[in-house]
Amino acid sequence: MGLAVDLPRNEVGIAAALGVLKQQFGEAFHTGQSMREQHGHTTTWIETQAPDAVIFPKSTQEVSDIVKTCATHKVPVIAYGTGTSLEGHVNAPAGGVCIDLTEMNSVVAVNAEDLDCVVQPGVTREQMNLDLRDQGLFFPIDPGANASLGGMASTRASGTNAVRYGTMKDNILSLEVVLPSGEVIRTASRAKKSSAGYDLTRLMIGSEGTLGIITEITLKLQGIPEAMSSARCSFETIDAACQAVMMTIQYGIPVARIELLDSLAVKAANDYSKLDLPEHHLLLLEFHGSETGVAEQAEMFGHIAEEVGGTGFEWTQKAEDRNKLWQARHDMYWAALALRPGAKGISTDVCVPISRLAECVTLAKDKADELGLISTVVGHVGDGNFHMLPLVDMDNPDEVAAAQGYVSWLNDVAIEMGGTCTGEHGIGQGKKPYLRKELGGAVDVMAAIKAAIDPDGIMNPGKIF
Amino acid sequence: MGLAVDLPRNEVGIAAALGVLKQQFGEAFHTGQSMREQHGHTTTWIETQAPDAVIFPKSTQEVSDIVKTCATHKVPVIAYGTGTSLEGHVNAPAGGVCIDLTEMNSVVAVNAEDLDCVVQPGVTREQMNLDLRDQGLFFPIDPGANASLGGMASTRASGTNAVRYGTMKDNILSLEVVLPSGEVIRTASRAKKSSAGYDLTRLMIGSEGTLGIITEITLKLQGIPEAMSSARCSFETIDAACQAVMMTIQYGIPVARIELLDSLAVKAANDYSKLDLPEHHLLLLEFHGSETGVAEQAEMFGHIAEEVGGTGFEWTQKAEDRNKLWQARHDMYWAALALRPGAKGISTDVCVPISRLAECVTLAKDKADELGLISTVVGHVGDGNFHMLPLVDMDNPDEVAAAQGYVSWLNDVAIEMGGTCTGEHGIGQGKKPYLRKELGGAVDVMAAIKAAIDPDGIMNPGKIF
Repeated sequence: MGLAVDLPRNEVGIAAALGVLKQQFGEAFHTGQSMREQHGHTTTWIETQAPDAVIFPKSTQEVSDIVKTCATHKVPVIAYGTGTSLEGHVNAPAGGVCIDLTEMNSVVAVNAEDLDCVVQPGVTREQMNLDLRDQGLFFPIDPGANASLGGMASTRASGTNAVRYGTMKDNILSLEVVLPSGEVIRTASRAKKSSAGYDLTRLMIGSEGTLGIITEITLKLQGIPEAMSSARCSFETIDAACQAVMMTIQYGIPVARIELLDSLAVKAANDYSKLDLPEHHLLLLEFHGSETGVAEQAEMFGHIAEEVGGTGFEWTQKAEDRNKLWQARHDMYWAALALRPGAKGISTDVCVPISRLAECVTLAKDKADELGLISTVVGHVGDGNFHMLPLVDMDNPDEVAAAQGYVSWLNDVAIEMGGTCTGEHGIGQGKKPYLRKELGGAVDVMAAIKAAIDPDGIMNPGKIF
Repeated sequence: MGLAVDLPRNEVGIAAALGVLKQQFGEAFHTGQSMREQHGHTTTWIETQAPDAVIFPKSTQEVSDIVKTCATHKVPVIAYGTGTSLEGHVNAPAGGVCIDLTEMNSVVAVNAEDLDCVVQPGVTREQMNLDLRDQGLFFPIDPGANASLGGMASTRASGTNAVRYGTMKDNILSLEVVLPSGEVIRTASRAKKSSAGYDLTRLMIGSEGTLGIITEITLKLQGIPEAMSSARCSFETIDAACQAVMMTIQYGIPVARIELLDSLAVKAANDYSKLDLPEHHLLLLEFHGSETGVAEQAEMFGHIAEEVGGTGFEWTQKAEDRNKLWQARHDMYWAALALRPGAKGISTDVCVPISRLAECVTLAKDKADELGLISTVVGHVGDGNFHMLPLVDMDNPDEVAAAQGYVSWLNDVAIEMGGTCTGEHGIGQGKKPYLRKELGGAVDVMAAIKAAIDPDGIMNPGKIF
């Protein structure tokens, strides 16, 4: 689909910068081919564009040193977390230096009294929550993959819990950022709210490494709820399942998770995760609150589900059953790929106002069928966000063209409905063609900001714009 | 205190622009002295700097026309909502044209199914909630004053409900903005979440009219809770009251409001609002939820209050009692001013991590006493945000100097504690000296963004920077 377009390389600058950085970073500096290729994009169908070197800094100062050298020689800098992004975010279309933040993985401070903590960007979501568990706290954002918190901030990630707890933009108090000049700033204080000037925190969140490198994150935390329960319910039609979601949101039931799997996705999950779920369209839910609260919520949802013809409604407070279901949900991407070995999954990520959800999902499914594309439907439907994942034989040009047309069509449909082409994955390389369709002249304002903060365009070039 | 410094005026440009605009806007164009002075800053102690003309546009197109004319002649443009801001936001230190958005006060659409609505910027908070009530919905942000939603967006306002529902930044999906060129953009779709490029919505929220004029706002709405109750409890010491707040937040009780009034503020409220509250330090609370939920929350808070020595704990679900208390809370600014007729109130607005709240409030009170300043303490303490309001005789230079020193000292203390000089009022003219203390080099990034979007500096000059 040709989205990983090569950009002009500054060969002289790259050679000069690599010379300096090699001296400076010694064993933390790598140019081996396999190391470089691992740091081009690998999770998705977008072809790999490897950087010229990979460096593993250990501190903000080291990140700043790398960026200063790259700034001097006008060489691209690409931040790398765990490589689980889906839109070619870590590709290096103009070459340059990849900064792998894996070794900056310390939890700097947990301020339990303030319900916040300070972490380095390489800390992963799962590591964070293991660290916090003893203190009765957790960080709610869960995009499925065990992503790094720096990467999650950079793509404005969200996932299954966002319906209740919001996205990364709602759960970060402050960032430390290395600017394209190498200068280090802090975007905000640790106060829970502030009206002090422009919201640079939110500007950096979701900027995909194009404005600077996040080197420290102050996260808001939540107390682990007194009680958690999960529920599931099957539906004969996608429309009925979506109706149940809409009513749940509109009645204000504070669901912590409400996820849709279509019957094909359920089949894939059964096969891959050895489950025996009924192979109808399925809603998976989670409730957080007090003992009485979660019972009340489950009961209310049960009534809604019944009203729209749901079957097999079950709910449980058993942690074991709950974890098994959610693990299967997290493995869904791999489960779907396993439906057609050898094919690549092209993940879509539209998000629409919830009143249009049933219509949008139904249209999307019908169109995929019409084009002969095999695709599961999986979605964070409480937010109106769902993923079609056409499984494509990349060696079959007709199929690739059909998938390309499908993705473009679906993004147009969502935008037409007042929605977005990307609820949580970001623009990267893969969604560049749709950004202007969605936001028009606002993209020029983004470009003006980019030019003002990164005048030489060294930060993650070829992404977003 | 000399914060309303005059800036150089572009006399030629102003004369030219006024000539064009007078032709264009006829009766909606005003240059009478009293009209102009009403549109300089009036609510606070900061002296008035009147604009050269005031225009009442009726549409986005008209706002765009005004801005285009001002852009051509490089003339300042100042947006005006209800004039309730507290930091000189609507002053015109370089003269120019005030755009009064009062007549752009339509609710454009209520999308009840999506829990959102689209409004023009002149719609006030109270008007909005009256309009929504029939549909069982409300907009939760409540800064006290019956401010316009455009103004609330521009200052990133919050207030009493923010502890549960967040600030304006958390409750806006999208903005329509007239840029300094006159071009109109929309910052985001109506999707509940998106990762499509830079977060221009959050960049515009809190930018105080320095990057553009907000002409339409898409707000997130909430369902009116099934049950609401309010509670109050008295405390012998400020420290005990703050301990109760901290424990409430740390235990995760989802209070909708938790407000502190010190004993002097309670006295002021009793006098002004004809109440008979016990004149100790007081916490006022509100709980939202199901019938069982609000009872559970009130009971949990009761236990906490008892543990730290609170007295006279009462809670009620009676709407009449609840409204009377909250009306008194809303009138607090005027009640405090009435303690010393003729004096001006200098509102401070620090916000600190909640673990430092008791210490910060106690220090602030002791220091005011030491300096002989009369000041109430009123605060949105669940967020760590409180307002000291020294009542100052502006004709007494010693007192003014003492207050000036006090404000500066308090902002330093809050910043030192990891907090901010402004939790919700914004920078405007009044807090400019503290922004760099708080955020250092990040202010240069803000300035670079300002220069990129508004290269001629016509949007609300002399504010923030």
